[in-house]
Amino acid sequence: MRADRLDAFIATHLPNIFYLTGFSGSSGIVLVAQNSAILFTDPRYTVQAKQEVTAAQVKIVRGSLLKAVGEQVEQRQGSRVGFEAAHLTVLQRAALGKSTGARIRWISWDGKVEGLRAIKDESELATMREAARIACASWEETLPLVKPGVCEIDLAAEIEFRMRRKGADGPAFDTIIASGERGAWPHARASRKLVKKNELVVFDLGAILRGYSSDLTRTVCVGRASSEKRRWYAAVLEAQQAARQALRPGVTAEQVDAAARGVLKQAGLEQRFIHSTGHGLGLEVHESPRLGRGEQSVLRAGTVVTLEPGVYIEGTGGIRIEDDALVTSTGAEFLTHANRELIEIG
Amino acid sequence: MRADRLDAFIATHLPNIFYLTGFSGSSGIVLVAQNSAILFTDPRYTVQAKQEVTAAQVKIVRGSLLKAVGEQVEQRQGSRVGFEAAHLTVLQRAALGKSTGARIRWISWDGKVEGLRAIKDESELATMREAARIACASWEETLPLVKPGVCEIDLAAEIEFRMRRKGADGPAFDTIIASGERGAWPHARASRKLVKKNELVVFDLGAILRGYSSDLTRTVCVGRASSEKRRWYAAVLEAQQAARQALRPGVTAEQVDAAARGVLKQAGLEQRFIHSTGHGLGLEVHESPRLGRGEQSVLRAGTVVTLEPGVYIEGTGGIRIEDDALVTSTGAEFLTHANRELIEIG
Repeated sequence: MRADRLDAFIATHLPNIFYLTGFSGSSGIVLVAQNSAILFTDPRYTVQAKQEVTAAQVKIVRGSLLKAVGEQVEQRQGSRVGFEAAHLTVLQRAALGKSTGARIRWISWDGKVEGLRAIKDESELATMREAARIACASWEETLPLVKPGVCEIDLAAEIEFRMRRKGADGPAFDTIIASGERGAWPHARASRKLVKKNELVVFDLGAILRGYSSDLTRTVCVGRASSEKRRWYAAVLEAQQAARQALRPGVTAEQVDAAARGVLKQAGLEQRFIHSTGHGLGLEVHESPRLGRGEQSVLRAGTVVTLEPGVYIEGTGGIRIEDDALVTSTGAEFLTHANRELIEIG
Repeated sequence: MRADRLDAFIATHLPNIFYLTGFSGSSGIVLVAQNSAILFTDPRYTVQAKQEVTAAQVKIVRGSLLKAVGEQVEQRQGSRVGFEAAHLTVLQRAALGKSTGARIRWISWDGKVEGLRAIKDESELATMREAARIACASWEETLPLVKPGVCEIDLAAEIEFRMRRKGADGPAFDTIIASGERGAWPHARASRKLVKKNELVVFDLGAILRGYSSDLTRTVCVGRASSEKRRWYAAVLEAQQAARQALRPGVTAEQVDAAARGVLKQAGLEQRFIHSTGHGLGLEVHESPRLGRGEQSVLRAGTVVTLEPGVYIEGTGGIRIEDDALVTSTGAEFLTHANRELIEIG
């Protein structure tokens, strides 16, 4: 803030608010000044804020939080106030402008808290390791239920139930179970479709634990895999290993992506790989850095990313293998430890 | 659009995109012009968009969707283009501005799709009735598990598992199980706390079915309720009944709120009722109208709202009763039919 000559900064993005103050409610704004921080929230959160927030003062507001923040800013010394342009709507920005006089200059100041969040400390990593363990164990326990005739949605229910029972606050996102040709949709949620013999089944699941997410994808074959499917699977696994090898402090996000993409290109599958290789993971399931083409950001030790190459064949299905990896001081380390080899069921 | 002399309109809010096109992916923008509609999405959704979208053309974009939309707008006749100021960030708005020349005039045009969404047709109502039934049945089946020593998170897991098994796409929000003094947090998620004898337990849960949400709250007492708790419960139930009586086409949102609030005031509990009486329900768990003080919007037949008065006593707990109600041509009708009387367990 000093470098950008800001007198104050307001955070409106909930994961950033949680990171700065510990507050986990769904309505809040944090005003940070040189020697103070104030969390504004509404009366539903009076008790919760009192219990969760230690490093900030709490103000309970009836009515518009933005208006209350604006009035507070107006009363203070200093006129340059940063806000999160990526996390404030045009309408909210207009309300903020109206709540203060012309003296206040609102400065778009993005990605600063995200930059702090990108480096996880030991306590955060302990939570993320446990969230990863919960996802892996829940998937492994559900595997015996995978057989012809089982419904995708029932498999999702089993996985989410087990994550909860193992202590997760809940699933980190809608669990994806995509069997057969639905596997060609990288983001297919579990549906009422029944799993059939000779289909590939993609499982993409994650647990939230004390705010932190895990994200795991495995693909299994119901019955014996054809030689073509085996070839695809081997290429995806090799692409993931290449990304894992490339991952270390000092490389750019696009270099990690290029490592995976290069393997799939060699295998003639480049056109089948229709998304980026991975993304940052932490208080959000998708946070920076994105491991994709053109991403120049340099990776640092303490960052957790997913590595999730995949191939998608319309009419047939998809294969994706995803693990969570921590950038260490010398290289990288997986947080997820479920079996990565092709599993053929029955 | 004609009334506001718009040549085109872009929708960026996902529930609005689903409503307009049927597309359920997590990345998309819809460009609507007089006689055409185009959905822009990324390659992950090629197959899904082809299957889900019938009323719009689909464009698959590698890279920025906003840039692609801007370029498309730039090529067309007409210069006045509406956007959703409540659903576009300041950063996205800047990117949009850069993607077109100065000829295009971007007009803040909010709440129009939401206005259409507020009136549910028969097919939407059939889905919402089923989502409501799933929530009620899942809660009723979980009730026998409520006893001293059970963990809040395990109750949440049971409820969510049952919702899934009954065909829900998933929970509509993190299930709230708030026992004892945690009940004084209106938005407490299920925690690792164990339920104890003589505690009130608040259950707030909902199912998503084909995009539509239900939202149900019930409060039970573990053991016999004290006369004070009975009095609180009776007041909350009476407040809900008053809101239900007030609900009909032509009333304002604040009149419904005032009906519930008046009952709690009579009971000396007005200060304990720290939120509004309810909110619109549909493709979002919270949509307009909000049934709160100062809300002048007039309710119309076909709108579904929650009615959820509550009282919160710090250190003791909370009581909330929430049902989903449809505004009919003559009055209102509950969609949720779970028992509303005080249940004392054991």
